[in-house]
Amino acid sequence: MIKITLPDGSVKEFAQGVTPMDVAKSISEGLARNVISASFNGTTVETTTELTTDGALVLYTWNDKEGKKAFWHSTSHVMAQALQEMYPGVKLTIGPAIDNGFYYDVDFGDQRITDADFKAIEDRVLAISKEKHEFKMRSATKAEALEFYAKENNPYKTELIENLEDGTITFCDHATFTDLCRGGHIPNTGIIKAMKILSVAGAYWRGDEKNKQLTRVYGISFPKQKDLTDYLELLEEAKRRDHRKLGKELELFHFSQRVGQGLPLWLPKGAALRDRLEQFLKKAQKKAGYEQVVSPHIGQKELYVTSGHYAKYGADSFQPIHTPAEGEEFLLKPMNCPHHCEIYNAKPWSYKDLPKRYAEFGTVYRYEQSGELHGLTRVRGFTQDDAHIFCTPEQLDAEFKNVIDLVLYVFGSLGFENFTAQISLRDPEKPEKYIGSDANWDKAENAIINAAKEKGLNTTVEYGEAAFYGPKLDFMVKDALGRSWQLGTIQVDYNLPERFDLTYKGSDNELHRPVMIHRAPFGSMERFIAILLEHTGGNFPLWLMPEQAIILSLSEKYENYAKKVLDLLENHEIRALIDNRNETIGKKIREAEVQKLPFMLIVGEEEEKNGTISVRRHGDSGKSNQTMTIEQFASLVQEEINKTLKSF
Amino acid sequence: MIKITLPDGSVKEFAQGVTPMDVAKSISEGLARNVISASFNGTTVETTTELTTDGALVLYTWNDKEGKKAFWHSTSHVMAQALQEMYPGVKLTIGPAIDNGFYYDVDFGDQRITDADFKAIEDRVLAISKEKHEFKMRSATKAEALEFYAKENNPYKTELIENLEDGTITFCDHATFTDLCRGGHIPNTGIIKAMKILSVAGAYWRGDEKNKQLTRVYGISFPKQKDLTDYLELLEEAKRRDHRKLGKELELFHFSQRVGQGLPLWLPKGAALRDRLEQFLKKAQKKAGYEQVVSPHIGQKELYVTSGHYAKYGADSFQPIHTPAEGEEFLLKPMNCPHHCEIYNAKPWSYKDLPKRYAEFGTVYRYEQSGELHGLTRVRGFTQDDAHIFCTPEQLDAEFKNVIDLVLYVFGSLGFENFTAQISLRDPEKPEKYIGSDANWDKAENAIINAAKEKGLNTTVEYGEAAFYGPKLDFMVKDALGRSWQLGTIQVDYNLPERFDLTYKGSDNELHRPVMIHRAPFGSMERFIAILLEHTGGNFPLWLMPEQAIILSLSEKYENYAKKVLDLLENHEIRALIDNRNETIGKKIREAEVQKLPFMLIVGEEEEKNGTISVRRHGDSGKSNQTMTIEQFASLVQEEINKTLKSF
Repeated sequence: MIKITLPDGSVKEFAQGVTPMDVAKSISEGLARNVISASFNGTTVETTTELTTDGALVLYTWNDKEGKKAFWHSTSHVMAQALQEMYPGVKLTIGPAIDNGFYYDVDFGDQRITDADFKAIEDRVLAISKEKHEFKMRSATKAEALEFYAKENNPYKTELIENLEDGTITFCDHATFTDLCRGGHIPNTGIIKAMKILSVAGAYWRGDEKNKQLTRVYGISFPKQKDLTDYLELLEEAKRRDHRKLGKELELFHFSQRVGQGLPLWLPKGAALRDRLEQFLKKAQKKAGYEQVVSPHIGQKELYVTSGHYAKYGADSFQPIHTPAEGEEFLLKPMNCPHHCEIYNAKPWSYKDLPKRYAEFGTVYRYEQSGELHGLTRVRGFTQDDAHIFCTPEQLDAEFKNVIDLVLYVFGSLGFENFTAQISLRDPEKPEKYIGSDANWDKAENAIINAAKEKGLNTTVEYGEAAFYGPKLDFMVKDALGRSWQLGTIQVDYNLPERFDLTYKGSDNELHRPVMIHRAPFGSMERFIAILLEHTGGNFPLWLMPEQAIILSLSEKYENYAKKVLDLLENHEIRALIDNRNETIGKKIREAEVQKLPFMLIVGEEEEKNGTISVRRHGDSGKSNQTMTIEQFASLVQEEINKTLKSF
Repeated sequence: MIKITLPDGSVKEFAQGVTPMDVAKSISEGLARNVISASFNGTTVETTTELTTDGALVLYTWNDKEGKKAFWHSTSHVMAQALQEMYPGVKLTIGPAIDNGFYYDVDFGDQRITDADFKAIEDRVLAISKEKHEFKMRSATKAEALEFYAKENNPYKTELIENLEDGTITFCDHATFTDLCRGGHIPNTGIIKAMKILSVAGAYWRGDEKNKQLTRVYGISFPKQKDLTDYLELLEEAKRRDHRKLGKELELFHFSQRVGQGLPLWLPKGAALRDRLEQFLKKAQKKAGYEQVVSPHIGQKELYVTSGHYAKYGADSFQPIHTPAEGEEFLLKPMNCPHHCEIYNAKPWSYKDLPKRYAEFGTVYRYEQSGELHGLTRVRGFTQDDAHIFCTPEQLDAEFKNVIDLVLYVFGSLGFENFTAQISLRDPEKPEKYIGSDANWDKAENAIINAAKEKGLNTTVEYGEAAFYGPKLDFMVKDALGRSWQLGTIQVDYNLPERFDLTYKGSDNELHRPVMIHRAPFGSMERFIAILLEHTGGNFPLWLMPEQAIILSLSEKYENYAKKVLDLLENHEIRALIDNRNETIGKKIREAEVQKLPFMLIVGEEEEKNGTISVRRHGDSGKSNQTMTIEQFASLVQEEINKTLKSF
């Protein structure tokens, strides 16, 4: 008999040779139906692997990451089989599962594969799957393995095998297909109910451009047809919402090759959007007792030597700026904290003056490889909504809560409802990794944990994930497409106050070190706007829209009335513009729709006569327009704004 | 007889040997009394020089720059005489007039001169002056000159003479004193009625630090005692108003050696001041049809190669920033125009879309030698209130007028009432120096001249002062101390549109080049704030003050009422703060005065009972406080603001 420990801590006894599937069945038939993969003592096993020792067993279903991985990896075997049948002579290389699906890198020789071929391959994969083939792992000696691929004339697999230790080599067989494989499959092909080839791309063998270029075939599969349909819809929606596409359509930002990659130019509408976000946060921060400061975008190298950033990042970042004389060296600032420490140091402080809260929309520059750049989410220059709070250890608790309040206010006003808070604490086993006294760490960690609890956050705690200089709390936000983003970070720092010799005079008349909190609710304006664009599809909360309404004249005759309406709207602080071009109203509406303008206000003879406007909402293609007065419209807009934008 | 041409173009005949003073007398006795210096055919002469040829004569009085120069240069002779008498054995070197006064570099040997000695020297200078000695020029051969200074054992004058051509050497004698001198003196010492030694400083012989250090004695003199009194008062006032001093006192900005010289850190109050100025200009610019954009602080080297800035300034500026991989080169942006050209280039334009007016508070970086840096007026990083207008040649006229309106609005709102406009045009003799067609230049120059005329500006026209890429208009503003500053520039540019291949589609459906206007009413935020600080002595216009009032509680008991008053003021959009410290009201008032807070609102028992405040104005030390309600105070503030801040 062997002892099997389950994730809930319970221990069950089974005869030696029991399989994970047997264990599942012993728990419930329902579980057994859903189990598709397993791990034993931390190693992936098949559901059919015979267990021979005591150990910890975890059973996975489709809902687990590990379950999906087995599902997709298994599908890649089936796809490889289909490709080998349909394209005789192709040479297989590797075919792993990835975050969303799987791929297989294939040497097609002289053959080609295009979008037009996908359907036939998918059909064949599903036909094979339907036959419910089991995946069977078996060991092979190195000699056997080499012999197998020598027959297949496959130099890639041969190369892989040559790098493996004899005795560790396994194959997986299903149907008529055999592949070199480490294992981790679903019970049988029958549960693959939907499969799609997503794309093909070039990929060098072993990622080395000196090697031959292979064809990487990307696919995904699901246990239900509906899952695939939903997934493809999500993909389409993500494409429609791609912030690079929307940014161009809405004329928000632009990249110029001459200015440089990863350095966005903000066009008027994008700059207005940024400004509105900044003013929104500035207003809330003012209420929360922050003070704005302004610091330069460069600093002497010595500044970053003092802060420790140079030692840590200097070699990988933009290199020092030399002066034509005097031999000085400056760096583009990669972060604002050293500057803010020097601002704190501009005069002596008493405990009565603290906390000092310095905020700055500080633009920082960090080098990224050009291949890593992506729209606004990965850039080389970005503006942080940065602030640094300098407080006494006793104030940490209250300050942390205040920061959480601010972050929650920001998320609420921008329609991010779905988030969790990750608390990163010390590794209790390795106290030597951290700077600052144990007492201070305890104080800071408790401050974070209590604040998160008191604010009712949905938290996860990660031990050992704290920075060496202090614990932190990160907000993980889910967007409308179900994707997770890290937004909003709050970090405690005992390091920089030490390095910059920051002090305040305590009530005991002695000098003490303040604690520093770094925080940024948006993180970076660029990345935040990208996420907000994809989250809202460009339909920002009404208060944020650069233009909230457009006045569309039925003909140029109504220009004066349109201007009068615009003036009245301005009195109500509604941002609007006029389209008085000599174009059809249909064309004007279509263009306003593309621009995502929330309200279209149509004016013609009737409206001018009655002093009204005919109001059409963005996206309301079916509904008829509503006629109302400017005052009524202003109330409507205010009502709508109040739904998202509360006062802080 | 010789013909003498006077500045008004009139020609008079005189006998050969006539002196400038004779000519003055022939015009009027009054003029003769005031003439203190002259130039003949562009060369400085004595008023006693005998004129022997036809030529153009200009007579100068104290009111002319040249008159002052002669006055101060003459005084330096007298001071040298006094020093030689009082400090036997000192060796004189050179003693020129400067912008405000004169100096003499003296080798005092083992002797020392300190502030305590100034009075005695001044007295001696005035005693000599009273004796009405005439300055008499005479020629000497090189041998005679060398012999004279060999006797005096003066190696400095000897070195000067050795570098002169024989036949060009002249001496000036007055009283018992003789000095090597090129001439340019007042008629006699009697008109020097007031004289002051301002300071002494070290100065190397010939400015070379390898040479011996001499003592530079700075002095100034005047024809009236009152002029000296006024001047010294102005100096004191300038010291009190030094923006570096005020910036520290008002906690506006700070320089950190670690961050780097010439890179100001803006403290909360300074950042708020900047922000207020920016919001003020943004609001006016929005009304004037400008759109804000945002561009990065670096650009690829290629961007500045395209713009031509690299070829012109590259070697003297901050050197290129290299990347750790990929071999890219970036530059800190020295100006925003190339970025704005690329923003213009983000999409195609039609003549119907123009003008485009892109505005940005763009921070730029330019290397300056550390010795050249001065507070906020000469820095290495500064924020321009920059904008670029892209328009058709036909629109230039109207755009130029709009820009002038904006600049005049800015000056008016900030209390700069005294200014002239300098128009810089082509050198008509050298058309080859300029790019762009003659027709376009004519159009642009006429646009500027007409706009300045129509707006009633007090203009001066400088031919040949235009940039090679277009004509310009600069505003020269006089501050409260009578000093002139160049503020506000408007430049037409035909060059960058060419270099960046900017186009628009005209009504003829063909592509055309837009014209570009660079303009910046403030110039740079840093320099402007420095000038504004010195102009106002820190007493900014009320609308601009970071804090407009401070509530001073008579004791901590009145904290709640103080807070209530603060809330009420906030409702009236009055920026105020509370001083509720446990300090005497006298101390609180003194500190509020240093902070230049316009209004002090004192609250105690009486005020709390009646719901009033006791209002004291900044600087009103004598007057009694006025008791009023918050509403009355709000009206008072609004009235005061309306005096300077008009709507645009």
